[in-house]
Amino acid sequence: MEKIVLTSLAILGFVPALVQQVSAQANPLPSWNEGAAKKSIVEFVAKVTKKGGRDFVPPMERIAVFDNDGTLWAEQPFYFQGLFVFDRVRALAPQHPEWKDKQPFKAAIENDMKALGAAGLHGLLELVMATHAGMTTEEFERTVKDWLATAGHAKFKLPYTDLVYQPMLELLAYLRANDFKTYIASGGGIEFVRTFSEKVYGIPPEQVIGSSIVTKFEVRDGRPVLVREPKLDFIDDGECKPVGINKFIGRRPIAAFGNSDGDFQMLE
Amino acid sequence: MEKIVLTSLAILGFVPALVQQVSAQANPLPSWNEGAAKKSIVEFVAKVTKKGGRDFVPPMERIAVFDNDGTLWAEQPFYFQGLFVFDRVRALAPQHPEWKDKQPFKAAIENDMKALGAAGLHGLLELVMATHAGMTTEEFERTVKDWLATAGHAKFKLPYTDLVYQPMLELLAYLRANDFKTYIASGGGIEFVRTFSEKVYGIPPEQVIGSSIVTKFEVRDGRPVLVREPKLDFIDDGECKPVGINKFIGRRPIAAFGNSDGDFQMLE
Repeated sequence: MEKIVLTSLAILGFVPALVQQVSAQANPLPSWNEGAAKKSIVEFVAKVTKKGGRDFVPPMERIAVFDNDGTLWAEQPFYFQGLFVFDRVRALAPQHPEWKDKQPFKAAIENDMKALGAAGLHGLLELVMATHAGMTTEEFERTVKDWLATAGHAKFKLPYTDLVYQPMLELLAYLRANDFKTYIASGGGIEFVRTFSEKVYGIPPEQVIGSSIVTKFEVRDGRPVLVREPKLDFIDDGECKPVGINKFIGRRPIAAFGNSDGDFQMLE
Repeated sequence: MEKIVLTSLAILGFVPALVQQVSAQANPLPSWNEGAAKKSIVEFVAKVTKKGGRDFVPPMERIAVFDNDGTLWAEQPFYFQGLFVFDRVRALAPQHPEWKDKQPFKAAIENDMKALGAAGLHGLLELVMATHAGMTTEEFERTVKDWLATAGHAKFKLPYTDLVYQPMLELLAYLRANDFKTYIASGGGIEFVRTFSEKVYGIPPEQVIGSSIVTKFEVRDGRPVLVREPKLDFIDDGECKPVGINKFIGRRPIAAFGNSDGDFQMLE
């Protein structure tokens, strides 16, 4: 069931006219309970799209920003990008025999969540750099796409990109049908989220904001490429979410949706 | 004459349907000479928009990137943002009596271009930080807008935002009428260019990439604001232009237009 929804959504992302037809129907958010949340969203959209109304907002200023982990897709048992990191460490381990006796790599190889927890943010960052840097942006994109196409959630036995929230997909389509531009502002990696955002959410790469590492222009075999370096560029979380939104969008969104402490400043 | 063109363009920016009608006419680039440049642009657009053709590009991937200084607007006698810096130093000088004996401020106050040249990039950066940091993003935006509304080019006696190239305005409109998303990738300040890009070029702030300084989230008088700090974040020039394009757009543009050495890597 979830799969059917997702597939049709992926098509909708490429056929805006169809989204509009579907969403302009009588009940734009069918999966939502008839409660205060739905009511306030529908009233808000009616208000800002009412021509001549006191709260009218021109289409070009209708920007809505969404957190990703825990808002658009699930985040249990762990951030999916974290699970990607651990899978990559295991895939790369044969080329790094030294990892099997070295923390935090040993913990990732053995799926030892307790030892990984003990390694803390610093340890996690070491794993991120070992798996996210040293290749071109195109090579990284291919690696993530391959992983998303083959890896599955341990409990639900489904691809991670199927574990998205149907009510939120409806909300994205509803807002776009009302001329909103929908953005993701994620604490996750910008290039990681961009590999699936268009297909899964109908959000093109240029409307994804996220954490990033430094990239460097190089010419390899006569071809210009960008190489990912093991150095943090920007962490898009907490007080930095409004910074990232200002940097990428340059004006205040009129709507924001998030689920965690890291979204508090953005919601302000 | 230039003013009429600009004014109508500013309106076009907000009425995309009108742009389409205007530009779908027989001659889409009326100010262009009937030469090789125009021919190659028109052929390129015909090719990528031809459904079923070998070179067809879906609308969501039609991204065109433009340099600003010297490409969309003029850059003589000096980058206009540089002239803004010198004007701001003069405007702020009464609050900084120490500047009148201190380089490079003294040179800016006295409009001594030779001494400014001798101060080099380091000196210019010192002036940029003194005039671009220490205020909120909203205060900075207001200052730039006030300056653009009142300052005039020494030779042409026109506002700087009138010194834009008519053929390039036509090219922007022509590409947008063919479902291109038009971006600016400028070596200039991102928040500087964003203050006028929508009105002058029809390019909204979220489609402007540029150099930036660090901003910090703060709550002032109970209101969340972003404060501009005297610290470089990103220089969007040379080898960093493709880096900026990848960061902000996340895919390769299919067209790029620039006029200087600093655009070479972007054009590659």
